[in-house]
Amino acid sequence: MDRLGDLHDLVAALPDGVVLTDPDRIEGYRHDYTRDPTTGTPLAVVRPEDAAQVQVAVRWAAAHRVPVVPRGAGTGLSGGSSALDGALTLSLDRMRAVEVDPDCQVAVAEPGAFNAEVKAAAAEHGLWYPPDPSSFEICSIGGNVATNAGGLCCVKYGVTTDYVLGLDVVLADGSLVTLGGPRIKDVAGLSLLKLFVGSEGTLGVITRVILRLVPGQGRPSTMVASFPTVEAAARAVVGVRRRLRPSMMELMDRASINAVEDHRPMGLDRDAGALLLAQSDAPGDVRDAEIATLRTVCEQEGAADVFSTDDPDEGEMFVQARRIAIPAIETRGALLLEDVGAPIPLLPDLLRAIAAIAAEHEVEIPVIAHAGDGNTHPIVVYDPTDAASEKRARLAFDAVMQAAIALGGTITGEHGVGRAKKAALPDQLGPEVMALNRRVKDALDPDGILNPGAVL
Amino acid sequence: MDRLGDLHDLVAALPDGVVLTDPDRIEGYRHDYTRDPTTGTPLAVVRPEDAAQVQVAVRWAAAHRVPVVPRGAGTGLSGGSSALDGALTLSLDRMRAVEVDPDCQVAVAEPGAFNAEVKAAAAEHGLWYPPDPSSFEICSIGGNVATNAGGLCCVKYGVTTDYVLGLDVVLADGSLVTLGGPRIKDVAGLSLLKLFVGSEGTLGVITRVILRLVPGQGRPSTMVASFPTVEAAARAVVGVRRRLRPSMMELMDRASINAVEDHRPMGLDRDAGALLLAQSDAPGDVRDAEIATLRTVCEQEGAADVFSTDDPDEGEMFVQARRIAIPAIETRGALLLEDVGAPIPLLPDLLRAIAAIAAEHEVEIPVIAHAGDGNTHPIVVYDPTDAASEKRARLAFDAVMQAAIALGGTITGEHGVGRAKKAALPDQLGPEVMALNRRVKDALDPDGILNPGAVL
Repeated sequence: MDRLGDLHDLVAALPDGVVLTDPDRIEGYRHDYTRDPTTGTPLAVVRPEDAAQVQVAVRWAAAHRVPVVPRGAGTGLSGGSSALDGALTLSLDRMRAVEVDPDCQVAVAEPGAFNAEVKAAAAEHGLWYPPDPSSFEICSIGGNVATNAGGLCCVKYGVTTDYVLGLDVVLADGSLVTLGGPRIKDVAGLSLLKLFVGSEGTLGVITRVILRLVPGQGRPSTMVASFPTVEAAARAVVGVRRRLRPSMMELMDRASINAVEDHRPMGLDRDAGALLLAQSDAPGDVRDAEIATLRTVCEQEGAADVFSTDDPDEGEMFVQARRIAIPAIETRGALLLEDVGAPIPLLPDLLRAIAAIAAEHEVEIPVIAHAGDGNTHPIVVYDPTDAASEKRARLAFDAVMQAAIALGGTITGEHGVGRAKKAALPDQLGPEVMALNRRVKDALDPDGILNPGAVL
Repeated sequence: MDRLGDLHDLVAALPDGVVLTDPDRIEGYRHDYTRDPTTGTPLAVVRPEDAAQVQVAVRWAAAHRVPVVPRGAGTGLSGGSSALDGALTLSLDRMRAVEVDPDCQVAVAEPGAFNAEVKAAAAEHGLWYPPDPSSFEICSIGGNVATNAGGLCCVKYGVTTDYVLGLDVVLADGSLVTLGGPRIKDVAGLSLLKLFVGSEGTLGVITRVILRLVPGQGRPSTMVASFPTVEAAARAVVGVRRRLRPSMMELMDRASINAVEDHRPMGLDRDAGALLLAQSDAPGDVRDAEIATLRTVCEQEGAADVFSTDDPDEGEMFVQARRIAIPAIETRGALLLEDVGAPIPLLPDLLRAIAAIAAEHEVEIPVIAHAGDGNTHPIVVYDPTDAASEKRARLAFDAVMQAAIALGGTITGEHGVGRAKKAALPDQLGPEVMALNRRVKDALDPDGILNPGAVL
């Protein structure tokens, strides 16, 4: 019980309530949304109020070689913040301040602030922070940075890393560095800022983020097209991308359409092979022209039914249908959520491969996709009370990642590797790139205390 | 002469003509555009035809602990590829292939291909590679990646790193890794791809680049506004950025206007304190609306004269005036070209500080700027035949970097640190971040053979 003895030093060094050891309190900080069955029980949960307290916790952990698992809002989808036995879970959920500098067009946010809170603070000044994971109302900006999160508007506006101008990071030895700053262009020194984005807590703990903001988004018009097959829809995606950059381009396959209709009937076409949901937020007449182009391409690729509206509320209804797809599918069983991607022209091949895997392993795998980015979320559904079903699901989950790799794709487009996809990472990267990852990790965290077991 | 003896092994291992040792041939590969007076003479210049030959050269260099200076087209502005005595200069100028995959919307380029060649190859398919350094017709894409180059359209379209999807890199031990690929979103593993972008040849030698392409740019309309003071122009920049994203927003101060007029009279207003040159490439009516907004903001900030045109040729004339500013200023003496940046609202302060430094050190410092990004190019002019003038210029050069740092800015927005700005880097980054840079460098190049003396 040496560690517990030492823990008293940490408790004493921090204000009351920062270090939680009560098992009931800890329980809520063990899992992220992946609900990884191998999740452990931390020695303590530390909830710092500022960067100095983060440093105290990391210094203590470094001195005692206790692993540290950084955690944002706990909405991760790859087990990147699942608790480890005997480790500290370092929850940033109390560091939630957001300030906007409208002249500089930046938001300065603490890591626990929700994505939606950053958006809201920006909107007060007529500005906009684009990246929009489906969970934007409940996910933290620190977690977004740690995973280089994407979302629905990324097809036109890019992902989190494109908006990160500066970071404060507490390193593995407890020291704090400031990288970048409120400057649009800055190439002084190595691109360490970009290295920390997407590092999933394995290189440091983010304590402050400076985000680039842009002028407010235009009012979107919406198009929904139903296709006889998922391949036809995927071909339409390829065709659209050559001609314009829609502000949203989502795909739902038949299984996910039907899951949504079962859960909350919205009048979607249950017989369609796939739906494409696209938006244009271009200003003025251009929006109409883009919607017309979207319609034309979809019709050329064989869309059976094409609907469009310039009423944002009506459009938002369809976006909601897309956003509730995961909760809707969740009512059908336990889920293993994929995040595989492929080069855009191979999207039809990837979707065909997924259907074949579902058939082979006798599991349901509905697919929703940020199709315009080639990033898909096949969702493997299983019966958690049936061991055979779970086993088939896990085989299918791995097979989907292998299919993506075989197509020159990726096992994760925006959720991160975490613990759930770690086993497949070497298959994608190969031994040389894995070794290079390891060299950078070892250089920055030689004792391996930062989120061990995640990613690498 | 051990090294020369060993060099025969390298010569023998590569096809005829790949290794140059003739001093006359070598001379052309010693300098980049910085013409750093400390430039040395390399042991040999290696001009590989493919990645395998790059590997042969780097393996030989690693085995013999001979430094390697990677070099693109030699248009660098910070001495990043200046030759070192006794080193290999590894020139990628023969590796110039470019292929475009229009469905994937990517260009796959060898590092020696010119930026303009990538743009041209993309345009054949109606696609566009945005980043546009002023030197785009003669600079290499490998150099662009190595410096994370910017340009004029970056204010709307971002910089090089935003377009790099994949890299092949020869590491310090001669092994070759492939990072990323033709996938829009990919967060598998650490962001090593982004780490190599902007690493100025200190971490590896880039042998292949996969670049994201976008649909072709719209026809631009152009606005030119002349302001009584440079501060008024800078305030207009701040005002514009809150309302729209112009596709170009350049500033020329009085000294650079007059240098251009002396060099090639174009009817620019010699009495203006500064000119702002802005474009909108938005489609349809939106372009007119954006130009109208640009005009309004400039008038509100006190522009004396505002001109706009939707004739692209007429607009291009003004862009040419901006592009020839450096050659025009070059006729006035030798140059020390800065690349300092500041947070946008502090642009007026930075420009005021530069004027004060020019007065204090009795040197001319005309300023051109990618003003919309807060990235400025003050150009310190001196008489190379007058040691006192050169000394004053060098003091002014350093003082400008210190002024940028004091404003929370950067010593380099897009040209890189190279050798010319290396001394100021610790003042910007501080000891902790310098140490972090060093740890990453040491992890990837433990023997320090890759571009030693550059950046760090």
